[in-house]
Amino acid sequence: MSSDGTDVRVDYSRVFTQAIDRLHSEGRYRVFIDILRNKGAFPNARCFAGHNGPKPITVWCSNDYLAMGQHPKVIAAMEEALHDVGAGSGGTRNIGGNTHYHVDLEHELADLHGKEGALLFTSGYVSNEATLSTLAKILPGCVIFSDELNHASMIAGIRNAGCEKRIFRHNDLAHLEELLAAEDPTVPKLIAFESVYSMEADVAPIAAICDLADKYNALTYLDEVHAVGMYGARGGGISEAEGVADRLTIIEGTLGKAFGVMGGYIAADQTIIDVIRSYAPGFIFTTSLSPVLVAGVLASVRHLKASSVEREGQQASATLLKTMLSEAGLPVMLGSTHIVPILVGDPVKAKRISDILLAEYGVYVQPINYPTVPRGTERLRFTPGPSHTPEMMRELTDALVEIWSRLALRKAA
Amino acid sequence: MSSDGTDVRVDYSRVFTQAIDRLHSEGRYRVFIDILRNKGAFPNARCFAGHNGPKPITVWCSNDYLAMGQHPKVIAAMEEALHDVGAGSGGTRNIGGNTHYHVDLEHELADLHGKEGALLFTSGYVSNEATLSTLAKILPGCVIFSDELNHASMIAGIRNAGCEKRIFRHNDLAHLEELLAAEDPTVPKLIAFESVYSMEADVAPIAAICDLADKYNALTYLDEVHAVGMYGARGGGISEAEGVADRLTIIEGTLGKAFGVMGGYIAADQTIIDVIRSYAPGFIFTTSLSPVLVAGVLASVRHLKASSVEREGQQASATLLKTMLSEAGLPVMLGSTHIVPILVGDPVKAKRISDILLAEYGVYVQPINYPTVPRGTERLRFTPGPSHTPEMMRELTDALVEIWSRLALRKAA
Repeated sequence: MSSDGTDVRVDYSRVFTQAIDRLHSEGRYRVFIDILRNKGAFPNARCFAGHNGPKPITVWCSNDYLAMGQHPKVIAAMEEALHDVGAGSGGTRNIGGNTHYHVDLEHELADLHGKEGALLFTSGYVSNEATLSTLAKILPGCVIFSDELNHASMIAGIRNAGCEKRIFRHNDLAHLEELLAAEDPTVPKLIAFESVYSMEADVAPIAAICDLADKYNALTYLDEVHAVGMYGARGGGISEAEGVADRLTIIEGTLGKAFGVMGGYIAADQTIIDVIRSYAPGFIFTTSLSPVLVAGVLASVRHLKASSVEREGQQASATLLKTMLSEAGLPVMLGSTHIVPILVGDPVKAKRISDILLAEYGVYVQPINYPTVPRGTERLRFTPGPSHTPEMMRELTDALVEIWSRLALRKAA
Repeated sequence: MSSDGTDVRVDYSRVFTQAIDRLHSEGRYRVFIDILRNKGAFPNARCFAGHNGPKPITVWCSNDYLAMGQHPKVIAAMEEALHDVGAGSGGTRNIGGNTHYHVDLEHELADLHGKEGALLFTSGYVSNEATLSTLAKILPGCVIFSDELNHASMIAGIRNAGCEKRIFRHNDLAHLEELLAAEDPTVPKLIAFESVYSMEADVAPIAAICDLADKYNALTYLDEVHAVGMYGARGGGISEAEGVADRLTIIEGTLGKAFGVMGGYIAADQTIIDVIRSYAPGFIFTTSLSPVLVAGVLASVRHLKASSVEREGQQASATLLKTMLSEAGLPVMLGSTHIVPILVGDPVKAKRISDILLAEYGVYVQPINYPTVPRGTERLRFTPGPSHTPEMMRELTDALVEIWSRLALRKAA
C-alpha cells in the first residue's frame, strides 16, 4: 500500500486478461483445430473438435506441400533410424548431439544449393533468427535491407541483431536501390528477402536484387522456405529454377514444409557456415534435431532431387484450383506459385467462413489474420498439392460459392 | 574506390576469416565428433572420426540422462505415430499443425507440474527465449531479475525483451533482495532462474526465492531443464521434490534431455499460457513439433511419472562416480546433483584430455569451454546415468588418472 492508502502493487492477472481480451474484441483470438492426419490418405484427416468422436476432414492448408510427410521412403528411413539409434540426439551439436545423419544431411543440402556447406537448425524460424542476428553482430556497423513482407522470423533476427535496418517496399527494386545508394559505401550491407512470399503467392526478382547487391557490394540472404523441394530441377528452389543460386551469399530453407518433416538450415560458403556454427547462440545452445527426423529428411531431399513427379503434380493441382475458383467468381489472389489465397478482408468473416467449411463441409482451411498478414487483408489460404483430386477441388469450389452467397460476400471484380 | 584511389569496399571474407581465427587462437574452435549411438546398448556408440570405419565408444556426456531415448515404450510410441499420421505436422500450431498428440502432451505436462496449462515449443531454447521476451513486452516497464549463471536461451529472451534487467550473483539471496528492494514497488517484476545449474551441478534455493517474490510482488520463472524427469516422485523436477511447484508462476522444461526426445515447454496458469500462445512470435510462426516426437515424449513422461527406477539408478551412478573420482584425487566439482564436472581451467588442456580419451580409451566426453562456461573455468562434464556400469566408471577413472599424470595436471586440493 502506498502512503495514501491505495494499493500500488501490480495486478499481473489483470494485465494478462486484458491482453487476451484485446484479441477477442478484434475477432482474432485463435482456436487451434485438433486433428490427426491419416498417413497414406493425406489430405484426409480426423478432426477431434466435434462431440461425436473423430470425424473425417480434408486438409486444405497444410505446408506439407508435396505430401512427403507420408512418403514410404521417408517413413522407412525414420523407422530405421528409430530402431538403429533411438529417439533423440541427447545433446547439442557440440556436446554429444552430433550424429552421422546430421553430417550427411548437411552435405546433401550444400549440394542441393551448390554451396560449400550447410548448417542445420531446429527450425526454419531459428535458422533465420540465429543467422541474421549473428551475421550483423560479426559485421560491425552492418545495415540490413529487408523486404517489408519478410517473415516474422527474419524480422526477429534483424531486430535482435540490434543493427541499423532499412525496410524496402515489397519486391520494389527502385526503392531498394534508393536505400542502398543512400548508404555509406564503406558500411557492410546485407539484403534479406524471400523467394516465394507465402501469404501473397508472389516471387521476388532474385537476379535483379543480386545485380543491386553486386553494384553496392552487399551480401544477400534468401529465404526459400516456401520453394525448396518444389521449384528447380532438383528442388533447389526458385534460385535453382532461375539459375542464380551461385549469386546468393546465403540460402535458407526449411525441412518442415515440402520436405515433410521438421527443422531448418542455411547453405553458404564454408567460412560463413563456420562463423554461424561458432557464434550463433540459437545454434550452439540447443539440443540438435532428433536423428529420426534427420534420417527422414535425408530420404526426402534425396528423393526430390531425383523425382519431379511431386512438383509437377503440385503445379497441375494449383493451376486447376486457381482456374476453378476464378471461373466461379471468387476473389482469388492470382500469383505464379502453388499457393492460392482468397481475399476476405475481415477477421470475423474469415473465421466464419472457415468455421462453416469445417462444420458443414469437412473442409479444413485456417483463416489467416493479423499479425500473419496486415489488418484488412485477412484471407483464406489454400495449398493444393499432388494428392488433392479434381473432385476435392470441385467440392471445395461449390462449398465456397454457397458460403459466399449465404454471407453475401464480395465476389471477384 | 574512394576519391584518393584506395578501395573502401568492405572485404567480407576477411571479416569472417578473422572471426574464425580468433577462435583458433584462443584454443576454443569446436570440432563436432561424428557419432551414432547404438539403440538398446546406450551409452555405447559408434564414432566416425577415425580412418578405419566406425569404432565403438562409450558416451559420457549425453543429456539423455535416463536413457529414455532408447526406452522400448518411447520407441514403440514413435513407431506407431509414424505409421498412423506420418513424419511432420505440416504447419504451425494455428495453421494445420495442431494434432491430438500435442493437445494430450500439453495436458500431461500441465498435470506433471500441477499447473492449469502447458505450451509446447520446438526446443527448450525457444521456450525460454519466446516466453521471457514476450512476458516482458506484455508487462509495461517490467524489470527482470536474472541469475548470473542463467542459460544462454534465458539471456537471449531477456535481451530480446528490450526491458530493464538486474543480474544477481549466482544463487545469492541477499543480492537478489537488495536489487528487488531498490526497485519501484509499482513496477512489474520477474525473477528468472534455474533449478539445477547444469555446468555447476548445484541447485537454487527455490523456496527462499519464492519468499522474496511474495515479499516484493514479483513473478517467478524457473528453468527446470536439467531436473524434469529426474527429481520429484513423478519427475516434476526440483520444484516437485521440494513441494514448491505451486509457488512458481512459470515452470519451463525440456523434452530433449531426461525425456529423451526433443522440444521444450512451459507450464503455468491458463491465462499466461494463452498470452504466450497468442503473442510469442517464436511460438506462433514456426512449424509445430513433429507428431512422432510428441508421441514419444507422451510415452516417456507417462512412464517416468509412474517409475522411479531410472531416477534411482541415475542417482546411484552419480554417487558412485563422484566417490571414485574423488578417491582418485581428481578435481571433481562436488554438487548435490547428477552432473559430475571436473575442473581443468584451460581450453587447450581440456580439449587435449578429451582428444586422448576418445583416441586411446574410446571414451567420449566433450570439453566445455567459453562461452558455455566463463573463461578460466573450462571443464570436462560427465553425466552418469542408470546404464553406466561400475566397470565403465572404473575404466574412466583409471584413464583420467593416467592422463592427469601424463599431462602433469593439477589434482584435487
